[in-house]
Amino acid sequence: MAAYDKPTLIYFNILGRGEPIRMTFAACGIEYDEESVPYGDMKGQAGSKEWPFGQAPVLRTQGSTLTQMTAIMRYVAARFKPELLGSTLEERATVDALLEGIDDLYLKYIDCVYTDQLSPPARDALWAKHFNPMTAQERNGGGHLRFIDGFLERSGGPFLLGAAPTIADLFLFFALEAFSRDVCFGNRPAQIYPRLGVFQEAVADLDGLKERLASSARASLSFNGNGVG
Amino acid sequence: MAAYDKPTLIYFNILGRGEPIRMTFAACGIEYDEESVPYGDMKGQAGSKEWPFGQAPVLRTQGSTLTQMTAIMRYVAARFKPELLGSTLEERATVDALLEGIDDLYLKYIDCVYTDQLSPPARDALWAKHFNPMTAQERNGGGHLRFIDGFLERSGGPFLLGAAPTIADLFLFFALEAFSRDVCFGNRPAQIYPRLGVFQEAVADLDGLKERLASSARASLSFNGNGVG
Repeated sequence: MAAYDKPTLIYFNILGRGEPIRMTFAACGIEYDEESVPYGDMKGQAGSKEWPFGQAPVLRTQGSTLTQMTAIMRYVAARFKPELLGSTLEERATVDALLEGIDDLYLKYIDCVYTDQLSPPARDALWAKHFNPMTAQERNGGGHLRFIDGFLERSGGPFLLGAAPTIADLFLFFALEAFSRDVCFGNRPAQIYPRLGVFQEAVADLDGLKERLASSARASLSFNGNGVG
Repeated sequence: MAAYDKPTLIYFNILGRGEPIRMTFAACGIEYDEESVPYGDMKGQAGSKEWPFGQAPVLRTQGSTLTQMTAIMRYVAARFKPELLGSTLEERATVDALLEGIDDLYLKYIDCVYTDQLSPPARDALWAKHFNPMTAQERNGGGHLRFIDGFLERSGGPFLLGAAPTIADLFLFFALEAFSRDVCFGNRPAQIYPRLGVFQEAVADLDGLKERLASSARASLSFNGNGVG
């Protein structure tokens, strides 16, 4: 039997956009290698086969270089645990839409982290526009925590699609970790949206993922590259 | 035999983020209905089953409401012409990554259209940072036409993955149409990146899509909602 070709994740030594991929591997029960980003190569060779978009994370596997966080999460699940993608075409499309919608919200947070260092006024503005349930019907570019909570409400929980977890749950769990740190909103999201607490408990209990969440390697990593948030 | 449940696309009477979905239906040879967005409902019911993210396009089909442009394109292809998604897991992941990377670039253009009305200084800045081949190794958030051209270079063309078209080609074709209008960059992209001309000819010749591109219904639509670009 040929040796298993272990995929290699290349990312920075932070949680960031690498962590939802690590969590996907964990939930699939699959081992992988990890290497740090050689920053000079990544930028100097931007647009090459090795660095197609001059960005990390990338995943090297089967002779291919795969890029973009959600594309890599979907790939890992498709290869090792396809039920994490949803079980019908409509469910899969809903998972895909949720990945986009969670990312729309996460990007508002990331912008606040990197542009405004999560200053109290910027954080308050972020809450007001994208988290306060009273503003969901205003202009928010499709990024609002109430929208995500609506999926949990309609599915009946504990997961976004109902009884079975998907990669959208992994990304949402990670985003909620970021939003709920003391330096960001603390326990306000779970207080205002009580379904989130039930959701977080269910995800934290998933086989494989449980071990990743409890690992000291994970605990040692910063959330973001600038030490904020 | 049960009547075919025709999917209904709900979008504005513009090209915008609805058009790559229409082009996907066309390339699949599938009929669909179309309705205009009831703007008051969309915002007033933002977060509901009918308007999960308070945004359009949405696709109503099989009793489900699907959202987010790339999720809908992937769904339509998966259901009606799966070869448009790529033929191996690695190819599918590459198509997914390209959809993200093309969107990163398209969003820079959209920001220039809606924030700066494509004013000449804003348009020049857009070109300098995201289109000029000399700047691909600088900071650009992963959005640069050279990155997309790199995929065509490595595949050998005429399509992004080589001999067979995918939904990433449909989105790129549409984005290039937007970039190449006289009010934007005219024929500069194809002059600087000659592979794009070959690509555009090949996509324009695809069965089904050809008819959509030549239709008077399409010709009558504006590109963007503010009449610019």
